[in-house]
Amino acid sequence: MNYERLFSKDTGNFMRSPVRDIFKKVDLSAICSFAGGYPDAATFPLDDIKELCALVLDRYGAKAVQYGATQGVTELREAIAERYGVPLANIQITTSSQQGIDVCTRILADPGDVILTTSPTYLGALQSFKSYRAEIVPLAGFSEESAGVPAETLARAKFCYVIPDFQNPGGTTMSLEERRLLCALSEKYGFVIVEDAPYRELRYSGEPVPTIWSLAPDRTLHLGTFSKIFAPGFRLGWIFGPEELLDKIYVCKQSLDLCPPVLDQYMAAEFMSSGRLDANLRKSIELYRGKRDLMLSLLERYMPEGVSWTHPEGGLFLFLTLPPQVDTVALYDRALGAGVAYVAGSFFYPDGSHRNTMRLNFSFLDRSRMEEGIKLLADVVASAV
Amino acid sequence: MNYERLFSKDTGNFMRSPVRDIFKKVDLSAICSFAGGYPDAATFPLDDIKELCALVLDRYGAKAVQYGATQGVTELREAIAERYGVPLANIQITTSSQQGIDVCTRILADPGDVILTTSPTYLGALQSFKSYRAEIVPLAGFSEESAGVPAETLARAKFCYVIPDFQNPGGTTMSLEERRLLCALSEKYGFVIVEDAPYRELRYSGEPVPTIWSLAPDRTLHLGTFSKIFAPGFRLGWIFGPEELLDKIYVCKQSLDLCPPVLDQYMAAEFMSSGRLDANLRKSIELYRGKRDLMLSLLERYMPEGVSWTHPEGGLFLFLTLPPQVDTVALYDRALGAGVAYVAGSFFYPDGSHRNTMRLNFSFLDRSRMEEGIKLLADVVASAV
Repeated sequence: MNYERLFSKDTGNFMRSPVRDIFKKVDLSAICSFAGGYPDAATFPLDDIKELCALVLDRYGAKAVQYGATQGVTELREAIAERYGVPLANIQITTSSQQGIDVCTRILADPGDVILTTSPTYLGALQSFKSYRAEIVPLAGFSEESAGVPAETLARAKFCYVIPDFQNPGGTTMSLEERRLLCALSEKYGFVIVEDAPYRELRYSGEPVPTIWSLAPDRTLHLGTFSKIFAPGFRLGWIFGPEELLDKIYVCKQSLDLCPPVLDQYMAAEFMSSGRLDANLRKSIELYRGKRDLMLSLLERYMPEGVSWTHPEGGLFLFLTLPPQVDTVALYDRALGAGVAYVAGSFFYPDGSHRNTMRLNFSFLDRSRMEEGIKLLADVVASAV
Repeated sequence: MNYERLFSKDTGNFMRSPVRDIFKKVDLSAICSFAGGYPDAATFPLDDIKELCALVLDRYGAKAVQYGATQGVTELREAIAERYGVPLANIQITTSSQQGIDVCTRILADPGDVILTTSPTYLGALQSFKSYRAEIVPLAGFSEESAGVPAETLARAKFCYVIPDFQNPGGTTMSLEERRLLCALSEKYGFVIVEDAPYRELRYSGEPVPTIWSLAPDRTLHLGTFSKIFAPGFRLGWIFGPEELLDKIYVCKQSLDLCPPVLDQYMAAEFMSSGRLDANLRKSIELYRGKRDLMLSLLERYMPEGVSWTHPEGGLFLFLTLPPQVDTVALYDRALGAGVAYVAGSFFYPDGSHRNTMRLNFSFLDRSRMEEGIKLLADVVASAV
């Protein structure tokens, strides 16, 4: 049968995730992988999870595994409202914050519409934007003068997607001034800001900066997730947004998957409201601070001259810039052969540029494997410089 | 802020679920509700679930709550492959079979494309099709002669959506002859068949009919779900399909939600492969057979003359046809006031016709509430005849 004639126009723009495709082909446990965005397995509260499951089944009975409300179970929305000081009516639970990105794009962007992003930015967001055939326009800065984007393009923007805290892939954080500039730009040109905040609670140094949501709640869709503060296997996230936008998201979500996983939501609610989340988060932050510091010192020790990197205050990633003649896409197979994996930085640039960069994850590997991996990687890089 | 100018064209076609909106407004536990498609809470194996959670956490450790593969965890795909005799390469796990419907529509239908359906059909599918601005064309029959659809329209069809077993809302089952006719029609006109089979394993009488997937695996996307054979709160389903179609679905799912919920998948795999599913299913079938029989006898006893209904061999629903002057949409508030809920049948017709019909669920209420509810409903109907 000829399937080609059947495919929708969107499929022509689908972009495979090089990260997820790596996972399909290679047994990453056999090599030193800085490629994924996996949390350290040691941060998963396995005993808590076992207890939470038994506890919510005892407390809620059949309700814990029956169909749930599309907006999410009330107990979880209340726990989030309480923790973040956001009204219940402004909270929608999502089946992962990737779904948050997808559903925001779905309600806002038609083919050809402009979506503003930083460059580089999160690959999974680029996948989603491309799949809807939107025009992705990178901002060079957040003011009208520094943006490097013509006014007529800004006027066509539906939203601007940013990860203000410890960005994926850069590890960088937007200053308060930059956040205010972006709010002013969005107000002038009438677009919404999608603030993706998966790493916000993983801060290891420096002072928290107010969320964009707190600066401009009427023009922001703020995405949160349990993936980095509980466990990614739960696939639970949330959106804070103005009620008029959340109403469209609510109706859209009915046809996407009816409701988020229910038992998982009750477990997450109890994890949050019982104080277990905060206790676990403190331990995770300690662990990751040490890993970030180790990674920075290993890079300092082993990387050849001409290589520089970001110094993130939190999150899971840092970003390397190699001498301009090094092509990290071409270098990838050699690295894999040597037993080390990374993600080429150019995948995070909407235009595929910056082929002399790479993203390194510092959360996943244990300390001895991290040292082994950075040594291997430094050798591979040195051979290409 | 003016959000209206920002919304995508799709949002203009979003259709609210009257069923889900009822759940938002009314405390259904206070009335006799035949409205939802909820399984009987007594079929949920709560003790098993508690055990399964502890068991998979002990066996798989951190892997059970880490990110998983986009196609689903191998153990679950293997359990499904074994149970249904389908090759592993033809199985994609979905985050609910509603997501299965959504993702099939996304990869196949552009705005204005034809999707063939029966009429009536599942409301959540209509929501999805409308949200992509497809043209929904009802088939009167499954042969070229009986379809009642011009050849040029059939030639524009991307897929035909059917629920062959114990259809929602009708409770009806397609004969083998009808399935074969549909396969022939799809072959002649080059469209795919989306076979939604959520109720297939809930057969209370009669003989199973082969799936459309078994008749035409190269042109069928078959959707299954754990919602009616385990518990709906898990939001897990699967698609059987040709590899070329599954590959597009795989890439699409990366940007939809990365992967299905992981702990839930391991629990479902163990529920299936340990034999617990079959044991639980036998009990559920016994329970539902009794409820279906009770519902049929109650309708016989209480409904006024001029009311007829389907006699399903399985599933969760039956469908009432009232005298032509009765408008079940208009009658709804009176029914709710009397303490009984249903879903007006016209919501299941793509053109909103058949306002003298209603869908009744017989799985959810216990036996005494069911009798109370049918008495109330019969009075409301009698008052309108």
